[in-house]
Amino acid sequence: MARKSGSSGEKTRVAVQEAAVTLFAKHGFAAVSMRQIASAVGVQAGALYLYTPDKQTLLYEILKNHMEHLLAAWAAENVSAEASPELRLEQFVRFHIAYHIERPERVFISYMELRNLDPDNFSRIEVLRREYEQIIEGILVEGQAHGCFVIDDARLTTMAMIAMLTGVSTWYREGGRLAPADIAQHYVDMAFRLGGGARLAHAAE
Amino acid sequence: MARKSGSSGEKTRVAVQEAAVTLFAKHGFAAVSMRQIASAVGVQAGALYLYTPDKQTLLYEILKNHMEHLLAAWAAENVSAEASPELRLEQFVRFHIAYHIERPERVFISYMELRNLDPDNFSRIEVLRREYEQIIEGILVEGQAHGCFVIDDARLTTMAMIAMLTGVSTWYREGGRLAPADIAQHYVDMAFRLGGGARLAHAAE
Repeated sequence: MARKSGSSGEKTRVAVQEAAVTLFAKHGFAAVSMRQIASAVGVQAGALYLYTPDKQTLLYEILKNHMEHLLAAWAAENVSAEASPELRLEQFVRFHIAYHIERPERVFISYMELRNLDPDNFSRIEVLRREYEQIIEGILVEGQAHGCFVIDDARLTTMAMIAMLTGVSTWYREGGRLAPADIAQHYVDMAFRLGGGARLAHAAE
Repeated sequence: MARKSGSSGEKTRVAVQEAAVTLFAKHGFAAVSMRQIASAVGVQAGALYLYTPDKQTLLYEILKNHMEHLLAAWAAENVSAEASPELRLEQFVRFHIAYHIERPERVFISYMELRNLDPDNFSRIEVLRREYEQIIEGILVEGQAHGCFVIDDARLTTMAMIAMLTGVSTWYREGGRLAPADIAQHYVDMAFRLGGGARLAHAAE
């Protein structure tokens, strides 16, 4: 069966992904049927297959899109490779927090539903996750070489830093005690501490 | 219907929880039926209700037990309130990592299935989670008062530290590059950095 193309088909394809993200985040991948997704989009269950061959592919595409958009959004920040590791770490922290608190459902699914990916799809997502992790690992290693960071184990520091930063999206609520920019500033400071760097966050602004 | 009591009933109640933990972790709460749980335990579906009134209560009891055991296990560490904040932070980090990497399924469910708790049950679990968070927040605040830690925001530092430490259970695999004790040592060092403390981890052993 041919996939629908053209702007109306593309719009529906996006709507299918959006509906699946909402339903997967609420009920979990295994509990959601293609029929429920079709109903949320307002198309017949049979027509859904014009936009995605099956639920596994739909999950894979959601996770792949999330990681590809994340990598593309970081690239679009245009952080110069010539910039100091301190400045790049600061920009990375602000970027990561802003990106993740805007997409709590996609972040949630990207961690939670890894268990439901087929092994091949899992491996492909792992490659993208590793690529993202290497951005921060690269900054830390270069900072170490330049003497501005002091780290014992670049890989563990990377995993610790990503967990610390992503954790914000599990508790952040709009209208809470701190505004996103204030939260980001605190996490910039904490990232510098974790990297053993001088607290240059404010100076680097 | 009376709940079964006595040692055989208690054994089955534990088996029901264990089976539910495994199934919820694998498929998600919403996708698992009471019939599947009964089948995994080897009892008739009708008999399951002797051990738990419904799936919601079962989920709540799993999450409550997890938090109560965690709090009890920390209490059993017998860390003296007279001990220095540095020593207590070190012991907390070692405890938290060891406890969490041994129970990846329960940790996973405790974060992921919060969304499926009824509001009242959610509030009760939040009280327990807050009680646990306050252990580390108390250590940090006291360390700040004693001048051994330097933190800007005790609440954010607490959330950052718990996310950083719990993150280990998402990637830790037996037989990996580092043994649990080595991982814990690195995280003790990183927790000291995050708390702005001197790196006394080795000295405190």
